[in-house]
Amino acid sequence: MITIAIDAMGGDHAPKPEVAGAILAARQFGHTILLVGDQDVIAQEMKHHPGADKLPIEVVHASEHITMHDDVKALRSKRDSSMHVCARLVANGKADGFLSAGNTGACMAIAKTVLGKVPGVDRPALSGVFPTREGTPVVVLDVGANVDCDPQMLAQFGLMGEIYSRLVLKTSNPRVGLLSIGEEEHKGNNLTHDTTPLLKQLPINFIGNVEGRDLFSGKADVIVADGFVGNVALKVSEGLVELIGATLRTSLRANLFRKLGYLLSKGAFTEFRKSVDYSEYGGAPLLGVRGACIICHGRSNANAIKNAVRVAAEFASSNLNQRIEQELRIAAKV
Amino acid sequence: MITIAIDAMGGDHAPKPEVAGAILAARQFGHTILLVGDQDVIAQEMKHHPGADKLPIEVVHASEHITMHDDVKALRSKRDSSMHVCARLVANGKADGFLSAGNTGACMAIAKTVLGKVPGVDRPALSGVFPTREGTPVVVLDVGANVDCDPQMLAQFGLMGEIYSRLVLKTSNPRVGLLSIGEEEHKGNNLTHDTTPLLKQLPINFIGNVEGRDLFSGKADVIVADGFVGNVALKVSEGLVELIGATLRTSLRANLFRKLGYLLSKGAFTEFRKSVDYSEYGGAPLLGVRGACIICHGRSNANAIKNAVRVAAEFASSNLNQRIEQELRIAAKV
Repeated sequence: MITIAIDAMGGDHAPKPEVAGAILAARQFGHTILLVGDQDVIAQEMKHHPGADKLPIEVVHASEHITMHDDVKALRSKRDSSMHVCARLVANGKADGFLSAGNTGACMAIAKTVLGKVPGVDRPALSGVFPTREGTPVVVLDVGANVDCDPQMLAQFGLMGEIYSRLVLKTSNPRVGLLSIGEEEHKGNNLTHDTTPLLKQLPINFIGNVEGRDLFSGKADVIVADGFVGNVALKVSEGLVELIGATLRTSLRANLFRKLGYLLSKGAFTEFRKSVDYSEYGGAPLLGVRGACIICHGRSNANAIKNAVRVAAEFASSNLNQRIEQELRIAAKV
Repeated sequence: MITIAIDAMGGDHAPKPEVAGAILAARQFGHTILLVGDQDVIAQEMKHHPGADKLPIEVVHASEHITMHDDVKALRSKRDSSMHVCARLVANGKADGFLSAGNTGACMAIAKTVLGKVPGVDRPALSGVFPTREGTPVVVLDVGANVDCDPQMLAQFGLMGEIYSRLVLKTSNPRVGLLSIGEEEHKGNNLTHDTTPLLKQLPINFIGNVEGRDLFSGKADVIVADGFVGNVALKVSEGLVELIGATLRTSLRANLFRKLGYLLSKGAFTEFRKSVDYSEYGGAPLLGVRGACIICHGRSNANAIKNAVRVAAEFASSNLNQRIEQELRIAAKV
């Protein structure tokens, strides 16, 4: 029986999508959900969902919550925030994992402080999961937890990403690429040049440099990058999907023929939206902390929260962290 | 009267799109075009375009050409390559600018060697021009000419990009942003933290940090980045446009209703493709060399070549380089 804690106060539209997502997840997966936050606010929201009281959902009260404007220093004065309580539930074994759609920087800091790092990990990495043309997902890490990385950190990201892809996404023999500006080994910057020999030494299927377009090509199952570069790549993708959506919407409404055409081909757009919709992929795992922590987009809808519960449960039941610890220990000896 | 030299041997499908693009440009803009490359090959291709002999197009013979596999060292043994001849035509005043869809690294190296740098410029920068949601173009530099940039280089990119946006793209008071991982000044890496004070000192409209999504949001007219990051951003965009195109094509052919719907709304897709089609924007100017040099995508079609001729002509007739020299001299004194 798996128990997942949800920070009900985190997202841009909290607690609406968090509560609705918890209900979807409890119904679909049967996991126990702990909804963490202001108990009155959550109870009020639950009233909109008749029958939800029969599901395995419990409310855990937290008297405070972190806002998008709180900086990392402010966290110390909010030790009873919903994020802190979520992380403590995992640390105390009362939950197997937690997720939050709140302030990403705060959530990473709290997860690192409350849960601690997996032995051997220098820096936990935020790992984006993207759809590819081949229909297989690609794990990109780091997407924003660490900037100015050194080669050792990138090598660890490669190892952690490989294990995640193998154990959680069930990829057999994941291909690990290093994000650079050309396929040839000499094309890159100082960081990629110094990281390549370290990745070659690891017991992983390292395929060398990959390029920006390979985030979607399906050429690699894991892509390693400095968090600055990975974050830019992630946000470029989001921005372009928004641009394309807006452009198509306007164009398809321009006249009656197009409107009719749109109605007939609507299913194609639903499929399209689903294929580029990150909410289907259920948030970004923070790899390297002692516990399953999934960080969701602030604009997550109920579907995104539901899928993040699925990912958190898969993460928690995978022995991922034991494996990371083990393989880092072996790699350190080489 | 403006004269533009085109490397007819460069692109993936050379000389077909180069010759067709030259003809379109000569017809539409009335500029004189020098088609540079193997004269027999070009003459053969010209035969497919009856009436082209009446246009202001001249063939300039070059006995060699650079391939995609030539590295920068190999360039020295190919001094009569079509790229070299193009650059010399500009250096000798016989052309006002040149463009190539060939090996990007080789073209940048040849432009720097043959044309030399604008006085005061440390490193010429390759400048991508992207469409935005607002309908205004954004200049992103550097997109791959320089990696491991220092803050001074980035500040120069900001100044050069601002002048390009103002003089060539006719933006009034261009907003210059620094590509980072959050809007707040403290969000970034060592390079952005050290670059911010330098950009603040320049006589430009510096708006602070922008994020990956702002490549398309229209929030900035100029976006400054290290060439590694800029190149990844560019290629992420290209990869995503390919993914989305492929996904929609498959979905829209899945059944008869969708096919019919697609036919009715086809105009919307043509508009959409045009809005994300980089060929409409005519290649990437290499800013900071003494002459107008436009580097086109290897897969450029005739339309992309035609638009690159337009951009090269606008660049050449804009006094851009004199202005860059002047403003760098003033900035150096501050």
